[in-house]
Amino acid sequence: MAKSDIEIAREAKMQPITQVAEKIGIPADQLLQYGPNKAKLSFDFINSIQGNKDGKLILVTAINPTPAGEGKTTTTVGLGDGLNRIGKKAIMALREPSLGPCFGVKGGAAGGGYAQVVPMEDINLHFTGDFHAIGVAHNLLSALLDNHIYWGNELGIDSRRVQWKRVVDMNDRALRAITNSMGGVANGYPRQDGYDIVVASEIMAIFCLSKDLNDLSNRLGDIIVAYTREKKPIYARDLKGPGAMAVLLKDAISPNLVQTLENNAAFIHGGPFANIAHGCNSVIATKTALKLADYVVTEAGFGADLGAEKFFDIKCRKAGLKPDAVVIVATVRALKMHGGVAKADLGDENVDAVTKGSENLARHIANIKKFKVPAVVAINQFITDTDAEIAAISAACEALGAKAIIASHWANGGAGTEELAHHVVELADSGVADFTPLYPDEMPLWEKIETIATEIYGASEIIADASVRKQIAELQENYGHYPVCMAKTQYSFSTDPSLLGAPSGHAVPVREVRLSAGAGFIVVVTGAIMTMPGLPRQPAANNIYLNDDGQIEGLF
Amino acid sequence: MAKSDIEIAREAKMQPITQVAEKIGIPADQLLQYGPNKAKLSFDFINSIQGNKDGKLILVTAINPTPAGEGKTTTTVGLGDGLNRIGKKAIMALREPSLGPCFGVKGGAAGGGYAQVVPMEDINLHFTGDFHAIGVAHNLLSALLDNHIYWGNELGIDSRRVQWKRVVDMNDRALRAITNSMGGVANGYPRQDGYDIVVASEIMAIFCLSKDLNDLSNRLGDIIVAYTREKKPIYARDLKGPGAMAVLLKDAISPNLVQTLENNAAFIHGGPFANIAHGCNSVIATKTALKLADYVVTEAGFGADLGAEKFFDIKCRKAGLKPDAVVIVATVRALKMHGGVAKADLGDENVDAVTKGSENLARHIANIKKFKVPAVVAINQFITDTDAEIAAISAACEALGAKAIIASHWANGGAGTEELAHHVVELADSGVADFTPLYPDEMPLWEKIETIATEIYGASEIIADASVRKQIAELQENYGHYPVCMAKTQYSFSTDPSLLGAPSGHAVPVREVRLSAGAGFIVVVTGAIMTMPGLPRQPAANNIYLNDDGQIEGLF
Repeated sequence: MAKSDIEIAREAKMQPITQVAEKIGIPADQLLQYGPNKAKLSFDFINSIQGNKDGKLILVTAINPTPAGEGKTTTTVGLGDGLNRIGKKAIMALREPSLGPCFGVKGGAAGGGYAQVVPMEDINLHFTGDFHAIGVAHNLLSALLDNHIYWGNELGIDSRRVQWKRVVDMNDRALRAITNSMGGVANGYPRQDGYDIVVASEIMAIFCLSKDLNDLSNRLGDIIVAYTREKKPIYARDLKGPGAMAVLLKDAISPNLVQTLENNAAFIHGGPFANIAHGCNSVIATKTALKLADYVVTEAGFGADLGAEKFFDIKCRKAGLKPDAVVIVATVRALKMHGGVAKADLGDENVDAVTKGSENLARHIANIKKFKVPAVVAINQFITDTDAEIAAISAACEALGAKAIIASHWANGGAGTEELAHHVVELADSGVADFTPLYPDEMPLWEKIETIATEIYGASEIIADASVRKQIAELQENYGHYPVCMAKTQYSFSTDPSLLGAPSGHAVPVREVRLSAGAGFIVVVTGAIMTMPGLPRQPAANNIYLNDDGQIEGLF
Repeated sequence: MAKSDIEIAREAKMQPITQVAEKIGIPADQLLQYGPNKAKLSFDFINSIQGNKDGKLILVTAINPTPAGEGKTTTTVGLGDGLNRIGKKAIMALREPSLGPCFGVKGGAAGGGYAQVVPMEDINLHFTGDFHAIGVAHNLLSALLDNHIYWGNELGIDSRRVQWKRVVDMNDRALRAITNSMGGVANGYPRQDGYDIVVASEIMAIFCLSKDLNDLSNRLGDIIVAYTREKKPIYARDLKGPGAMAVLLKDAISPNLVQTLENNAAFIHGGPFANIAHGCNSVIATKTALKLADYVVTEAGFGADLGAEKFFDIKCRKAGLKPDAVVIVATVRALKMHGGVAKADLGDENVDAVTKGSENLARHIANIKKFKVPAVVAINQFITDTDAEIAAISAACEALGAKAIIASHWANGGAGTEELAHHVVELADSGVADFTPLYPDEMPLWEKIETIATEIYGASEIIADASVRKQIAELQENYGHYPVCMAKTQYSFSTDPSLLGAPSGHAVPVREVRLSAGAGFIVVVTGAIMTMPGLPRQPAANNIYLNDDGQIEGLF
């Protein structure tokens, strides 16, 4: 039987983090260590390398996710190891997993098989405390808000128009909607409130888009927490919160260094939701990696229609990043599902289904071209894949001028991605990339949404109620230059999660728009968006424990 | 003008924590470092020193607190430095400050003046993440509980009888009483709920009383989270929570090592509330310190009527600790307040008021004798103190056979406590101590409460409604052997906070009893108990920020 992820992780021969750091040019005394295998970088060091030349930036994205699994993080790690293996200096830049979901369905999120980052248990649990810091900073602002109302409400906050909820890093449906300040005079004025999971906090998005601590502090001030009865916005700075919030975040904002199973350096830092936020690791980590490596491999949330689009149009646009190549991850099994096969039948060869499902992949390849960045497809190998099925994928890709390369990192680590690594280097070094966002800043918000819907999702139009149109028109005045952040189901190009493959001609209903003034984007909601998950009937937590040797069981 | 605490802390010449560790016999490779100046100890190391002889244990406690301030933590640190200064191997064992209150009234809590532990900013903020871990472990259990109800409530939890609230490390009155699970079917069954601050979590008390990770895990299982309609208790283990909760706490449970301004070792670990819990740092930290030092100086919350009594009757009883000496901290100013002087008049000499106020001190000295441990009084010096006032205190102490020694650690660090240190060594080495808890395990609960009230508080009786008496009688059956944990105002020997000095003959009303089955004690509530503080009109948070040099301002 194959070893579980946690068994493989446990057998890892980790190097001291000082040694991993040294390999990429970071002196030991510039690390803030968190035990022997995790460290944060000093800002003195980060400032000292700003004159370095930037390496090449490679984005790993994927087809629309299915229950069959794609393995985006796994491929990011595998490719990073593969690049190092063929003699390139490569660093990975990944998102931090959220602690809450570990206790729900999915277990951990630090890669899988022989393509993992370690110490896997720490990364999945408290890690270096970044998410705790973000959670406290968020809840401090919440407390300051209700405290302001309690002591006389000089700012005139309309308690029906409070936008700023509270957060906890836990899947806890009971907190989605609450009434707070119950119990009498000493506890304040009862009002409706609710909790999001920490990764859905606007502070997480801000954290990941900030250039430095100063930029972070300014953006925190721009957060709109509520409105007055006259709909005048109340900012975080009106509550005098940002100073103390930045103090709480001063260590967290420094990137975390860990290693892969093959002892290559990986930065894991920040992890915003990929629906109401942009779903990428921090700008600071990506930029620092670029100063230290010749090739930086990073990832974005969900499929390319959401993840890559936001990576390009939000993160790269805002941070001035110029990606050089894109890897689109697909699996035979997932493409079969896009081709109409049920999960139970995925073990049977079905070339027709693969061909049909490859329409989903083809749409993503075509989309990436619109950003003028070259792409390659990585077929994340499973034992049941047949040659004929692989050939079907290759044919679909070649029609669009993209290579499809088998990657077996899950079973073989970096040795399984050598071919992919060579091709990625070729693409990135070719100079073909001429990154261009999909739309210019000055395009009106409505057109931005329309452009993404038609160009990326294959939709024919966007639709919205008069009230939503009015809201967009109002936002256009002061925030028309912001990019839009689409909150759409990740399972389909359309807004209907059951429409697999490559649907086209559909309408995209815009149900709601939200201003994230601190993060600097407009969230466009096209369906039901969950910002606080629940636990399943049998939560993973029930099977997580320390065994007699003090090792963690049940995290995977 | 005198330097502020944070200015003094910033000028500290900290040694690498490896060097501090080495001085007390901890090899560098047995540390889990959190940056250069904080570390946790490996359990391998802790296990390896169990054969060592124990050092002497010295408790620092105080008179009943007044708004004038006493300086218990400051004296603990100053005495530790003084002991090292006179050539003794001494380690301090202190409580971790709670992050939430930093943003309220008081600023930080890591000593003051030239008697501080550093890095002060880190200790006051996230430190090594222990409180975050405790908060998440607590909230995981909360989520599992509501999730259990949501999925069918097989255990038959009566949602009106849920005891287990949620926690956050923040002063946030709006969360004291909430209604959760609002918003419809997908969010569960609405019920009343509320938040406590993290330090009030039963997990914090458990954390501080546990011998090791295994003991911790068992105690977590014993937590009673709710009752059925038939009043049958539902335990944390019924929700299959303790395994994952222990996983979340596995790093936190290891003691944190930091240093004083004079580079002496201090363990700072755990910090339960001193009303509904026992208010002492962790047993693991205290015991580890005893294995490494000849003298361990530790502290307990509030005045000696609560803090010392609980230290003796709960912590020492449960952990098998044998304290060797007690230091009772008093100030001239605070004794004046106990003698009836208003805060505005504390600067004027008033020997009569000091003499009268010393009745409070005298009662505490007499109380400590009942535990058969020798005591000394430390007069924490202020610039306005006069010789005549000091003489008045000395006279009051001498009448009870205790010395009163001036300590000027706030201004002079360890050099200001040399005389105190010499006397403490003399007391601790004298062999006079023959520690005995105030009451035996087998004394019935009602009598335990009565004994504390009459022997320690000077009360004439305890009173309680029939319903409370019935509850005590019920608890007597299964939990009669537990110690009691008194939740009483810290400002007075009585339950009336305005009765200063040494009141006697009063009645102590028992308003409520609560079972902390995991911690292993019965909480006896004698007044309004606040387990979630609020922020003041002008929160300290409003003035906390990072200055242009990246230093924290406003934390003090």
